[in-house]
Amino acid sequence: MLKDFEKNQPEDKKAVDQEIKKLRAELLARQQKLREKKIPVLVLIEGWAAAGKGSLIKELISEIDPRFYSVVSPAYIPESESRYPFLYPYATAIPENGKIVFMDSGWMESLVRKSLTHEITANEYTRRVRAVNEFERQLRDGGYLVLKLFLHIDRKEQLERLENLCSSGDTEWRVTEADLWQHREYKNHLKAYDAFMEATSDAVKWHILDGKRRRTAIRDALKLLVDRIDKALEKDRYCGEPFEEKFPLIDMPLLKDVDLSPTIPDEEYDKELKKLQKHLSELHNVIYRKKIPVILCYEGWDAAGKGGNIRRVAYPLDPRGFDVRPIASPEPHELNRQYLWRFWTRLPRTGHICIFDRTWYGRVMVERLEGFCSEKDWKRAYNEINEFERQLTDWGAIVLKFWIHIDQDTQLARFTDRQNTPEKQWKITDEDWRNREKWPQYEVAVDEMIQKTSTENAPWFIIESNDKKYARIRTLKIIIKALEEACEKKFREDAEP
Amino acid sequence: MLKDFEKNQPEDKKAVDQEIKKLRAELLARQQKLREKKIPVLVLIEGWAAAGKGSLIKELISEIDPRFYSVVSPAYIPESESRYPFLYPYATAIPENGKIVFMDSGWMESLVRKSLTHEITANEYTRRVRAVNEFERQLRDGGYLVLKLFLHIDRKEQLERLENLCSSGDTEWRVTEADLWQHREYKNHLKAYDAFMEATSDAVKWHILDGKRRRTAIRDALKLLVDRIDKALEKDRYCGEPFEEKFPLIDMPLLKDVDLSPTIPDEEYDKELKKLQKHLSELHNVIYRKKIPVILCYEGWDAAGKGGNIRRVAYPLDPRGFDVRPIASPEPHELNRQYLWRFWTRLPRTGHICIFDRTWYGRVMVERLEGFCSEKDWKRAYNEINEFERQLTDWGAIVLKFWIHIDQDTQLARFTDRQNTPEKQWKITDEDWRNREKWPQYEVAVDEMIQKTSTENAPWFIIESNDKKYARIRTLKIIIKALEEACEKKFREDAEP
Repeated sequence: MLKDFEKNQPEDKKAVDQEIKKLRAELLARQQKLREKKIPVLVLIEGWAAAGKGSLIKELISEIDPRFYSVVSPAYIPESESRYPFLYPYATAIPENGKIVFMDSGWMESLVRKSLTHEITANEYTRRVRAVNEFERQLRDGGYLVLKLFLHIDRKEQLERLENLCSSGDTEWRVTEADLWQHREYKNHLKAYDAFMEATSDAVKWHILDGKRRRTAIRDALKLLVDRIDKALEKDRYCGEPFEEKFPLIDMPLLKDVDLSPTIPDEEYDKELKKLQKHLSELHNVIYRKKIPVILCYEGWDAAGKGGNIRRVAYPLDPRGFDVRPIASPEPHELNRQYLWRFWTRLPRTGHICIFDRTWYGRVMVERLEGFCSEKDWKRAYNEINEFERQLTDWGAIVLKFWIHIDQDTQLARFTDRQNTPEKQWKITDEDWRNREKWPQYEVAVDEMIQKTSTENAPWFIIESNDKKYARIRTLKIIIKALEEACEKKFREDAEP
Repeated sequence: MLKDFEKNQPEDKKAVDQEIKKLRAELLARQQKLREKKIPVLVLIEGWAAAGKGSLIKELISEIDPRFYSVVSPAYIPESESRYPFLYPYATAIPENGKIVFMDSGWMESLVRKSLTHEITANEYTRRVRAVNEFERQLRDGGYLVLKLFLHIDRKEQLERLENLCSSGDTEWRVTEADLWQHREYKNHLKAYDAFMEATSDAVKWHILDGKRRRTAIRDALKLLVDRIDKALEKDRYCGEPFEEKFPLIDMPLLKDVDLSPTIPDEEYDKELKKLQKHLSELHNVIYRKKIPVILCYEGWDAAGKGGNIRRVAYPLDPRGFDVRPIASPEPHELNRQYLWRFWTRLPRTGHICIFDRTWYGRVMVERLEGFCSEKDWKRAYNEINEFERQLTDWGAIVLKFWIHIDQDTQLARFTDRQNTPEKQWKITDEDWRNREKWPQYEVAVDEMIQKTSTENAPWFIIESNDKKYARIRTLKIIIKALEEACEKKFREDAEP
């Protein structure tokens, strides 16, 4: 930890420069191998203000081919990003396979600052630290090489550097109010940094670098990077073991036990639909103004009526405040990143409603059954998804998940109708017929998914859709109830002092 | 134009509703055909505040499958976007092939408002109108179906609607200061809208819809959309004719006339490099603080030394303030959009330096020679690229383009060296050898490109790189000179009252 950090070893400049040169050549020799083995590398560089993070990154990248790395500086992201979950700038910036991302200050700097300035409560801080651990572990388990560095200088050294920067008009602007505040509160920061590092060493450990000795820090960072890459190259790409945290789960029936007979008379449907859509439209206004993000997830059998259901929900919404995200097979640039990346990049802003037409649950359905990921991968996914969704609801989002359910006979009737109706033919493909043959395997996977991921914060609803109209009314009612509750809760919170 | 717009036709609600129903079914029947023919559709919906744009969009999308459309609202984009060229929110939001994008207020609303509030000068307004015409024409010529609608209501109607909205707590928040200002200044807006529409009817014409009669407006919009789609489906995808605007061009030599003999002694190189890098580093500070965007474009023969040149330029830069963008073959989601889209999405923010390792000039080199686009496409591209680059420099960017030049013997020597050096083998592929065989064809294409696109605002520099070190020094000097001039200009402008 920082408080016991041993410094003051003398620095033999010439010898260290030699080592740096050698290590740079070694890193260079490994860049192509990283690509061949498709290993993504995330190097997080945290540290004190004026410790030299930018200059360290400059030295690390100086020889690497630009095709193999990029530098991201989430701290410089405009404030608008605060309309997303706090992990958003990091989760959307992860490297693709075979590339290195150097991150110039990330989740540590931001979390510690917000905790010390009381921008977030102690509870919120604890939740975020948990989310950080989940995020790092998920990356590691997904085969990412994550390296976390902290560039350390003591208070005296920091003072000298800040004074030095402020003494020239050319560099004065680099010193921000936040830097000066950090310096005044050095001791508190030291404690908070130590506590943060201790709390986030589960999946990926921290390395402290001696910022006072610039060359030594560069040498040590290069050495760590090269060593870690070598270890990763030796074996198969790492794939984490499945494990299950106890999430508070809701008791859910098996699909076969769901009664699919409910229907609604046409006349009642028309009246109810109109009434519910009007109500939803009004609620959308409140959601928008109260900045509550809403995530509606649709999964279901082919031809179960997802599309029509979504349209009835979307119709009363203001088009400026919602998006439907149809999820198709991943594109190459999506396949090249952790599987949740393409959902992180599609999250709604606060106050917006996002309807996912198919979702991240593809991992434990089609990817599981078609062998697009390993057994360990999909077995780990239940827990990873529960964590992801808890991160969303901790952010304040409403997350509702619908399994649009029909029986096999109904599917056959609808497939046949599509086949025989020219305007509908595009909706039916050979793949649909092939998937139909796998109904029993899918049923096993769907049952397991619903049993393991219907958490209290992000519940599943099995929607009886043999009668599509009944299904639409039921879905609308569920959404309205959840939105009403969230709005009431928000009003109560806002009313509190 | 708006001032002569005939309204007050009576609306037979029942008959119009019938028509709407029929047109919706027709639109639905065409969505799959649009996908098959890969035609992208951009529907821009402008209009007065409270004219009902949102509600119109809602009706247009209500039956379409979410896989076929999306709604974008650039007006709601956070202010951070102002760190990009003014067309950025629109150019990055264009639809991909086979999809419809409905844009809820776009370039018109934003430009007219900024002109009336004097946020931009009359000259800047004129430049932006020109850019809008270029943008629309480029989309049309690239096979995009662009439909521009303006939803019109008169001053009295607007007053009623605004009063109505303000009378309830649930809707009051929807009326912004800007809306009220627009209403007070209705007459000036009317004139300005008319002038804007007249100035932007070259490539794509405007359609005015009667916002007072909601159903009629929906019917008319649907009819226009269906008719335009039908016309587009009848023929081959449109491909615009090449034409050449007179851009102020710089006299450039042909490649064969370039003297490649210049060299630099090692000792002088080391000294110069250090000095120039230090200077560039200082200039980067100024660029960053003065918020000047810099775009450096690298093209050149394989093995000409682009990578090493880029590294020497990048080394002194603060990693927080620059990016290298290596450009590989386009991914599927990039191929599915106008060819400049993948460069729009990669532009730097103001104050940042972006180094493109290969660029949009692929259009008139590899895409031309390999037949990845039609002859019309690449012939049109010279002009389109000149326009694109003028949009960048009008925004305030420095755009410099380097052709890293060697002769065939030097290339052979370097290829052979790569082949024989294990660490370098990844750099040489069969494709490189194949491209080498096409040297004469490439030389014709490169000569034509440099002759036609070396504009005064975005010049080409042919960099003699038989001696790589000489090339690096020369490139650095060119960059430094351009940055110095831009900084001086900015200082002069800022000093003016």
